[in-house]
Amino acid sequence: MIAPQSFTVAREDRELLAGHRGRVVWFTGLSGAGKSTLANALEVALHRTQKRTYILDGDNIRRGLCKDLGFSDADRVENMRRVAEVARLFVDAGMLVLVAFISPFRAERQAARELFTPGDFLEVFVNVPLAVAEQRDTKGLYQKARSGALAHLTGIDSPYEPPLAPDLALRTDLLSIDACVERMLTLLASSQGTMPAIARPVPAPHSRCESDRAPLP
Amino acid sequence: MIAPQSFTVAREDRELLAGHRGRVVWFTGLSGAGKSTLANALEVALHRTQKRTYILDGDNIRRGLCKDLGFSDADRVENMRRVAEVARLFVDAGMLVLVAFISPFRAERQAARELFTPGDFLEVFVNVPLAVAEQRDTKGLYQKARSGALAHLTGIDSPYEPPLAPDLALRTDLLSIDACVERMLTLLASSQGTMPAIARPVPAPHSRCESDRAPLP
Repeated sequence: MIAPQSFTVAREDRELLAGHRGRVVWFTGLSGAGKSTLANALEVALHRTQKRTYILDGDNIRRGLCKDLGFSDADRVENMRRVAEVARLFVDAGMLVLVAFISPFRAERQAARELFTPGDFLEVFVNVPLAVAEQRDTKGLYQKARSGALAHLTGIDSPYEPPLAPDLALRTDLLSIDACVERMLTLLASSQGTMPAIARPVPAPHSRCESDRAPLP
Repeated sequence: MIAPQSFTVAREDRELLAGHRGRVVWFTGLSGAGKSTLANALEVALHRTQKRTYILDGDNIRRGLCKDLGFSDADRVENMRRVAEVARLFVDAGMLVLVAFISPFRAERQAARELFTPGDFLEVFVNVPLAVAEQRDTKGLYQKARSGALAHLTGIDSPYEPPLAPDLALRTDLLSIDACVERMLTLLASSQGTMPAIARPVPAPHSRCESDRAPLP
């Protein structure tokens, strides 16, 4: 029942207008590792140079698109799947989309990566020792977990599987934010390939219409 | 468990960079009414003037984000809810997002509208008599429905509830595509309000950090 739809303005047209390729930067790491902080700092740096950016995180996803989901294993998997699918739409829209989720399991990160064309998905491992994340305890979650008020906290009573081959690993307890941003910008720049200098002309709306679509009178 | 996250680059910053406000144009109407055709023509017109655009339709939604959903009433409601939530993210990203779905029920369109700040959601009723849509039969669905091979087709054996107060109604059997685009551009322009002429400076990344977030060392 769902016929493929072909639209005139394609991903490449939007990328040419933006002056950069669409990419997803996927931040994974413990709570308190600095995922949101780095996503924020990277967005500021990109926005200053007029890049098209957006951040997907627990706040704007769990309160809207995924508000029907809880924290069971099945719901967490579905949550990640939807986040990755939305990120894919943003990449198709020619955006640099920054995704900040603990995403503790290799399999779910791999499933996310596989939704993308190779090169579109950049995994950034925000890496600190658990002791550092727990000492920061930016959201007070570790204290709650240690006192028994919170179950299944990643790193405490739920595992975190570190990436084996991330596109970038950043020790936020050893590097400054600026140094992290610098490395992320280098990664993004190297992911861009070559962009044609001049935007190709957008064809007239009808030149790529499907043959089965009757033109409006 | 989900703490509100405040990021430095806000919707308004992205809109200022884009040079326009984020908006959703929601196309509703029968299969064959011309929703995708009009969304496509509008996107071409907007893209030519360097606007940031994206189209959400059955193809990129049903094959990805909503591929777990079928066509039961409950699944159709959930499909619309997710589309509206994704559109909201795109509006927050400062994009002009064009949504082309039959969306036959007033209640579901109203539910979608209520996710948005008043003025962000523009409903375009793509209006043709059923006889015209059926004669076009751009996807061959009416023929299937009449032969009994397809059930629950909107307009045949499932109702279509026309909008009572759409932001725009377009009779695509009486108007040319160009005339429709002209009216949609007028609607979008009148929805824009005033844009400050000069982008406000983006604050440094830390100036709006939450007080409970420890800076990285």
